[in-house]
Amino acid sequence: MKVTLENVLPGDIEKRSFAIIEGELRSRGVILPEDRAPLVKRVIHTSADFEYADTLCFSDGVIEKALAAIGAGASVITDTKMGYSGINKRVLEKYGGQAYCFMGDADVAEMAKKNGTTRAVAAVDKAAVMEGPLIFAVGNAPTALIRLYELITEGKLSPALVVGVPVGFVNVVQSKELIMETGVPYVVARGRKGGSNVAAAICNALLYMLDETRGM
Amino acid sequence: MKVTLENVLPGDIEKRSFAIIEGELRSRGVILPEDRAPLVKRVIHTSADFEYADTLCFSDGVIEKALAAIGAGASVITDTKMGYSGINKRVLEKYGGQAYCFMGDADVAEMAKKNGTTRAVAAVDKAAVMEGPLIFAVGNAPTALIRLYELITEGKLSPALVVGVPVGFVNVVQSKELIMETGVPYVVARGRKGGSNVAAAICNALLYMLDETRGM
Repeated sequence: MKVTLENVLPGDIEKRSFAIIEGELRSRGVILPEDRAPLVKRVIHTSADFEYADTLCFSDGVIEKALAAIGAGASVITDTKMGYSGINKRVLEKYGGQAYCFMGDADVAEMAKKNGTTRAVAAVDKAAVMEGPLIFAVGNAPTALIRLYELITEGKLSPALVVGVPVGFVNVVQSKELIMETGVPYVVARGRKGGSNVAAAICNALLYMLDETRGM
Repeated sequence: MKVTLENVLPGDIEKRSFAIIEGELRSRGVILPEDRAPLVKRVIHTSADFEYADTLCFSDGVIEKALAAIGAGASVITDTKMGYSGINKRVLEKYGGQAYCFMGDADVAEMAKKNGTTRAVAAVDKAAVMEGPLIFAVGNAPTALIRLYELITEGKLSPALVVGVPVGFVNVVQSKELIMETGVPYVVARGRKGGSNVAAAICNALLYMLDETRGM
């Protein structure tokens, strides 16, 4: 096979990628609502998987609410260090927010062992008592999403946003359906697919949209 | 929709997931070579994407060579902090290896600026002069893979393994084809798909296979 490289300057690779994604979405006949388009395109950019154009689900007005929460200095809690690593913390901190991952914390491991549950559940419990608007970005553990569902339906937690994109085979599909029943603002990737990379991409898309809105 | 959760103990979720993956592979008529099966299944586990059963490509004898390199204390160099975060460093360190990501280093940023290239290329150049067996795990930057191709074909670098799974739309497909022409041991996800999560999953699959082989 003769391999021919495309000549694109380093600084133009992302722009060129988004142009390719837009072209393919057009040729597939996909029309995205204007406010959601940057988010859907960024998830496809991070996964090269056009299925997300069909599977990403949004609660009413979620983009506006999410941008308001970030602008008010929301904390972003991830369920993996990978998700934490992928979030653009420089932009988040510009708006007064911080990113957290409690999965490696000793008190979380202890609580999980004591309660016979996953560390992901214990990490949600630890985050649930934090001050200020909370964004939960779940890219791995359906048990985290199920725990969020419990706390929300018991009236103990009211997150500003739930990014519900765990990946996998056991209770993943179900956990996403539960979150979409709660009435909290959500972005969910329906089905089995998702991941920490997808969770980070959704958070970053929101951060860049806020930058765009505010001309920063 | 009535949502019914599957009752699986936290410690059994991974085992149950792999059983589901094996069942679906069987029903799709996919037969995986025994030495590669744990790696392919772990990539599907991390992505919920069965396409990888078709797109993962392996050089001859790569599993055996990769396990030998890890057993000899190979360094694993990733092209993202997300990939670095996802690798099981506890197991890697047990065999004397370390994981590295040079993308955030000041000297890498400086070298990239000076040479008008990407930080990913500069990070490969920084890693290429390291001692001992080197495993490159590329989940993001095709430019990293292309730089590896150049160094290998110029006779300046002989990696123990290249995990070539960048994701994206510009030169991603091509960079993977180039690596498969070099003759170095490789695991490559042909096409556009891949990612830091996939790169980490492949490294972890190899680490767990070595544990299994050695009864650790």
